[in-house]
Amino acid sequence: MPLITLTTDFGTADGYVGTMKGVILGICPDAAIVDLSHGIPPQNTKAAAFLLAASHGYFPKGTVHVVVVDPGVGTDRRAIAVRTREHFFVAPDNGVLSLVLSPETVVEIVHLTNPDFWLPRVSKTFHGRDIFAPVGAHLANGVEIGDLGGPIRHQGDLVACHLSEPQLLPGGSVKAEVVYIDRFGNLITNLPAKWSGEGDAEFVVASIPGNSANPVLGRCRFHAEVMGRVILRLCRSYGEVDPGELIALVGSAGYLEIAVCCGNASRMLGAEFGTEVIIHPNSR
Amino acid sequence: MPLITLTTDFGTADGYVGTMKGVILGICPDAAIVDLSHGIPPQNTKAAAFLLAASHGYFPKGTVHVVVVDPGVGTDRRAIAVRTREHFFVAPDNGVLSLVLSPETVVEIVHLTNPDFWLPRVSKTFHGRDIFAPVGAHLANGVEIGDLGGPIRHQGDLVACHLSEPQLLPGGSVKAEVVYIDRFGNLITNLPAKWSGEGDAEFVVASIPGNSANPVLGRCRFHAEVMGRVILRLCRSYGEVDPGELIALVGSAGYLEIAVCCGNASRMLGAEFGTEVIIHPNSR
Amino acid sequence: MPLITLTTDFGTADGYVGTMKGVILGICPDAAIVDLSHGIPPQNTKAAAFLLAASHGYFPKGTVHVVVVDPGVGTDRRAIAVRTREHFFVAPDNGVLSLVLSPETVVEIVHLTNPDFWLPRVSKTFHGRDIFAPVGAHLANGVEIGDLGGPIRHQGDLVACHLSEPQLLPGGSVKAEVVYIDRFGNLITNLPAKWSGEGDAEFVVASIPGNSANPVLGRCRFHAEVMGRVILRLCRSYGEVDPGELIALVGSAGYLEIAVCCGNASRMLGAEFGTEVIIHPNSR
Repeated sequence: MPLITLTTDFGTADGYVGTMKGVILGICPDAAIVDLSHGIPPQNTKAAAFLLAASHGYFPKGTVHVVVVDPGVGTDRRAIAVRTREHFFVAPDNGVLSLVLSPETVVEIVHLTNPDFWLPRVSKTFHGRDIFAPVGAHLANGVEIGDLGGPIRHQGDLVACHLSEPQLLPGGSVKAEVVYIDRFGNLITNLPAKWSGEGDAEFVVASIPGNSANPVLGRCRFHAEVMGRVILRLCRSYGEVDPGELIALVGSAGYLEIAVCCGNASRMLGAEFGTEVIIHPNSR
Repeated sequence: MPLITLTTDFGTADGYVGTMKGVILGICPDAAIVDLSHGIPPQNTKAAAFLLAASHGYFPKGTVHVVVVDPGVGTDRRAIAVRTREHFFVAPDNGVLSLVLSPETVVEIVHLTNPDFWLPRVSKTFHGRDIFAPVGAHLANGVEIGDLGGPIRHQGDLVACHLSEPQLLPGGSVKAEVVYIDRFGNLITNLPAKWSGEGDAEFVVASIPGNSANPVLGRCRFHAEVMGRVILRLCRSYGEVDPGELIALVGSAGYLEIAVCCGNASRMLGAEFGTEVIIHPNSR
Repeated sequence: MPLITLTTDFGTADGYVGTMKGVILGICPDAAIVDLSHGIPPQNTKAAAFLLAASHGYFPKGTVHVVVVDPGVGTDRRAIAVRTREHFFVAPDNGVLSLVLSPETVVEIVHLTNPDFWLPRVSKTFHGRDIFAPVGAHLANGVEIGDLGGPIRHQGDLVACHLSEPQLLPGGSVKAEVVYIDRFGNLITNLPAKWSGEGDAEFVVASIPGNSANPVLGRCRFHAEVMGRVILRLCRSYGEVDPGELIALVGSAGYLEIAVCCGNASRMLGAEFGTEVIIHPNSR
């Protein structure tokens, strides 16, 4: 069964998403449609890029991901479709795909210029309904991506979305920042991290993109600073400490995260998108 | 695959919608179910009527639209099913279907009186689960609408939902009002409008229902007043101006709309459902 | 078509639910997935238990219910799967299934210990994605529940969720409390109740779990006290009285409920989860 995901900033109250699904099912009646999120903060292409990066890898090969966070709808920003080794992506060319595309995975990029695959009447304000949904449905039906428009030869020609990256400070500390806050108030930073070692000897290895440094965060010798508060515990899971305690952990998308057991770290700390998080590795 | 849409004021947190889907899939296991909206403001039949009117036309022929915004559940208000040339509708007879039914499209209307197509036990408080969901599922299964209850011969016998209509003022201005506010804070008015002309000569033609007047809004000679603010720009798309600028445009449902580029017009202006919008056409 | 329901406290904005669906459809591509709720208050296992109890009976035989309200994720709390006469359930062993399992219905319980049915890499923070979703999908595919892990012989070995129960007071009154508040602000109590009789002679029979007493609430001789307000009307439906009037009624899940016609009882009364409701039966 063809599988299409939708990621938008439309919310679900206004019928915009339902209308897109009507268009999709009119073209590809046996499509399974999965809502990845419709709660992207309005016009926040970075949040959409982050969420798509964390989620798309869990979908089966051949999935068509339609992303409509599109403040430039109706202007001359391009609409694009991309085929990677595993998936298809349909989106405005405004950076929302930046974090899922890489030279190793991209097979083909087209500029959506062929109106044969759009609705007959195209508005200036709702390309999700008029262009992106029908194009996604045609891809799910097996239409060749090359038929959808003219080729874009180089990934570098696409608009990029620059997420801030963590920086290594003199002395070995790392300056990261909050790039996503979820429903639980967990503060997800831009610092990629993963557990290594075992038992008492386990530790977290962080990585600084574009830098060969791999700071090591020792489980029992670590601290982080956020909004003037010091966090001393590096945990495996939210429930490892007492309710109300602030901890750092490696979140499910593979980034260092600040959380509070059975509570809301964002509210407790007053932290927001962009809030600075300083990490002191202290080694093992 | 049979297609059923759901439009309710139930929200999605309480399990009411999920329960309706369980009932539907028990009767029609291969139904595709699309959520049109569950965020209709509680008991707001007008908002439901507007949203359904804007969305239903994008669904394929044969779609069954189930609408449960039903403050009179359990009283003697009727439950109805309607077959139009293209679709089926199942709803309480309280006006929610007013804007999608017309003498030209309605083929058959029935009063839902046949309990063979309901759940065995019918509560007084949740007909969405006990009557509307099973009836919708049976229609999706191909049950004849005439089997569901007694005929209602005339559309005029149904309860009507009176949306306010725009008025032509002496001097040629138009008094419209806000009939829907979406997640982005866009103020959708009750003034039908569409673009005409091309390039520098393009303009918007409005229409006053029940009146032959068609005020013309010139792109460069137009202004609107909302909450004491004057809006001078009539744009094709949200992104045509600088962030923060107030504009008017023709929204995706075909109505004049007040918006702010990358912002929230409702919050910026303090506008609400029913807020007056005065439009001065000024011609071309 | 295999049917899977999802009940979580994840919200729908962050992509967690969409990711679980990607995992499910990768394993069981023809599954129909129904969202029962993703708006469970964070970590509120009691609300999840209540909602699941009210809803699951409306799903067809063989449905797989996946429940992820899981404050103990990554700790040593067990993950379980349960087969009842009608359905399957997959959840953490933290009480969320308490209200749907009974000695009469439970056929088999297993502790999820077999990683063959999990994702290859299991995080410590998102078992919804890594364990519960794939296990649910394998069950929907027809995998034997006994293959998923070791048997748990007795239902009594599971963690129980203790909802407060209504108490019979000296004199025959009943002390109930609010156990759920829905989107409309309706206050759902823990007092099971149903209508009996007919016409002018109709009345409500309440039941006190674990007690043979069945207080009878006469339609015209009844009052309830909530937050210092007295409610005199026992109604069949929300719309039976004038807008704004406070009433008691039997809600769609079979519990006594306090509501206000076309309004929000929770806001009007300042009532919350746990608010006391005293019912004076007064007989017929």
